[in-house]
Amino acid sequence: MTEPNRDDGSNDGPLAGFRVLELGHYVAAPFATRLLGDLGAEVIKVEPPGGDPVRQWGARYKGSAPWWSVHARNKRCISLDLKKPEARAVVLDLVKHCDALVENFRPGQLARMGLGEAELRAARPDLVIARVSGYGQDGPDRDKAAFGVIGEAIGGLRHLTDHPPGTSDLPPVRVGVSIGDSVAGIYAALGVVAALLRRERTGRGGEIDVALTESIFSLLEGALPEYGTLGTVRQPTGGAIATAAPTNAYRARDGVWMLIAANSDPLFRRLAALMGQPGLVEDPRFAGNQARCANTKVLDAIIGEWAGGLDADALEAALRDANIPHTRVYTVADIAADAQFRARGMVQEVADPMLGAVLHPGVVPRMDHTPNAPRSTGPAVGADNASVLGEVLGYDAARIASLKEGGVL
Amino acid sequence: MTEPNRDDGSNDGPLAGFRVLELGHYVAAPFATRLLGDLGAEVIKVEPPGGDPVRQWGARYKGSAPWWSVHARNKRCISLDLKKPEARAVVLDLVKHCDALVENFRPGQLARMGLGEAELRAARPDLVIARVSGYGQDGPDRDKAAFGVIGEAIGGLRHLTDHPPGTSDLPPVRVGVSIGDSVAGIYAALGVVAALLRRERTGRGGEIDVALTESIFSLLEGALPEYGTLGTVRQPTGGAIATAAPTNAYRARDGVWMLIAANSDPLFRRLAALMGQPGLVEDPRFAGNQARCANTKVLDAIIGEWAGGLDADALEAALRDANIPHTRVYTVADIAADAQFRARGMVQEVADPMLGAVLHPGVVPRMDHTPNAPRSTGPAVGADNASVLGEVLGYDAARIASLKEGGVL
Repeated sequence: MTEPNRDDGSNDGPLAGFRVLELGHYVAAPFATRLLGDLGAEVIKVEPPGGDPVRQWGARYKGSAPWWSVHARNKRCISLDLKKPEARAVVLDLVKHCDALVENFRPGQLARMGLGEAELRAARPDLVIARVSGYGQDGPDRDKAAFGVIGEAIGGLRHLTDHPPGTSDLPPVRVGVSIGDSVAGIYAALGVVAALLRRERTGRGGEIDVALTESIFSLLEGALPEYGTLGTVRQPTGGAIATAAPTNAYRARDGVWMLIAANSDPLFRRLAALMGQPGLVEDPRFAGNQARCANTKVLDAIIGEWAGGLDADALEAALRDANIPHTRVYTVADIAADAQFRARGMVQEVADPMLGAVLHPGVVPRMDHTPNAPRSTGPAVGADNASVLGEVLGYDAARIASLKEGGVL
Repeated sequence: MTEPNRDDGSNDGPLAGFRVLELGHYVAAPFATRLLGDLGAEVIKVEPPGGDPVRQWGARYKGSAPWWSVHARNKRCISLDLKKPEARAVVLDLVKHCDALVENFRPGQLARMGLGEAELRAARPDLVIARVSGYGQDGPDRDKAAFGVIGEAIGGLRHLTDHPPGTSDLPPVRVGVSIGDSVAGIYAALGVVAALLRRERTGRGGEIDVALTESIFSLLEGALPEYGTLGTVRQPTGGAIATAAPTNAYRARDGVWMLIAANSDPLFRRLAALMGQPGLVEDPRFAGNQARCANTKVLDAIIGEWAGGLDADALEAALRDANIPHTRVYTVADIAADAQFRARGMVQEVADPMLGAVLHPGVVPRMDHTPNAPRSTGPAVGADNASVLGEVLGYDAARIASLKEGGVL
């Protein structure tokens, strides 16, 4: 896999030849189509003429969010005011030419615009339709307002991402990214590809229904079966792990957090020796993983005091020499400088026509015959109106001009 | 989608007819194959005769982890001591009968056992091979010890999952689940299905290379392009969001954390009125989202004081009546009792022959023609030795007995 560009003329990703229509905004649906585009699909994104609001999210550079360069890479962007009646016919024309549709409107909203399943299937009977929503397409809560943070809280992750009960008065911590949207997006991509695979064999389209709440909930390991059998309610453990110790982040003298995972007997023995306290392994509080888990607080304090006496570079060198799994807690600056990320093309400089040089992440999952570099960066609103409506749909210049004059594009 | 069991005889998931071999342990690879099994694939898991260590992880019930019932559902489990030379031929025989292989040994370890790519492809030229590892299959760090928590730290998520700098001396918080393993598992499943789709068209197998570090890093939204263009290093924001306020968890009088997302002008107006402080919307510190983001700390204190005067039930009712997006921060007990999760079959009681009734999560993503209930629960070690080696591989009873006597099974 070190040579993604093999010489057999098929170096364009496993989804090359499939066309995906995105009726999406914000994060979840656009992330799904970005993954599909990364794997070679041709993606057409429909935006309101004012643009997807995410174009302005977060920090801005030269008038737009640098994130956009990545979030809309490998996509063609057309503008369309879905509130105008003429837009409906354009969407249905697009659907005719697409294998899959990914959307994250509120449940039922597309149907109210005349783009319900019957209309979509009339245009393209074998269409694969993936819908992403807060709570899912049915059930008593389907119409509730969905925010990513609410999905994270209902899916059970917010509760678990906190210091242990009684540690502090601070609220539980948000996972520092829009985790619900992103995980839902990956599941939507998985559903689309699985439905396309089935379509190859059966000729039938498919429907995928991904909820943010459920995507988060799917990550909860054994929490549900444990609750169902034993009645135990899983609780947060701060920076540690309930079942293995010591594993936590410890602050070096210069303020850097260092993650140390010395949670087996041989690793703990090496750590104790390194700290100059070999007797700890005989201490009944720390002899064996079970004892260490029961005394995490005092053990973490001992390790923290030792770590706090060294600057991060020295601490890192000592842990490396002792062969104890560790890492500094990376910021994005550390990521950008990391030799492994660079070696695998996970951090790469890309030329963006609007922004200049931009750092892009590579393609995950890495696959053979799949280029790691983007074919294009996120374009301006409506940048591809003429090419998509002209080349894909065969509209003539007069028709495109008329749509533009009518404010439809 | 409310009626998953349509009456056309194809209600068995989009991956029905595909067979997947798991040479996995712990979380990442087994989670990938669980997802593939949920979508209809036949999964055969190979374990050492002592069993996958994850069978004993976390809480135990009747001698094993309730998680196992879910983690190994829809899988047939065979035992095989890969250190014995006879095991190699059995694996290669299995490969002949499988479409895909998912493994999470250390990079290169299977090759050292005589199960490198050349040997696998000799057995099955069009095999799809997915490998999950800490850092990836190549690059300077490929041989480093990989732990989930280290992937989380190197991928940049640990740094972002913390209170804002200067808030407390507590370490950053671990996302409360093995997030790196799970997300890597979903990506591996996506890669396998994409490669199978390509195989339908080209006849060619494929290789997927998923790293825990990169799977986490893929979730970082615009952090990398922002750093690359502006030099800004994204920092954690505790329970809040950097770009929208107020959104946080606030503690009710009875200790329950309530997530409130009133981060638009109309929503904030309603919240201010509900709190009996309508003047807040005119206060220059809180007029408009930008001002509110700049004064989050004082605003959160005001809301927190109000919330702390009400029990969770009363707080919830007030927010519901005022139509302000909110939710209590769910524990797994809340999830198990939730009407929406129940209505969508995301929490369902399943009969486990070993454990009795166990609560299982439903299938994510939900898809048409895909049963939501598991076909089987996680079996005992080696439970399917006879059926897999006999029916799938065609070994006779004498050969199976000889493998058993030799300690290979």
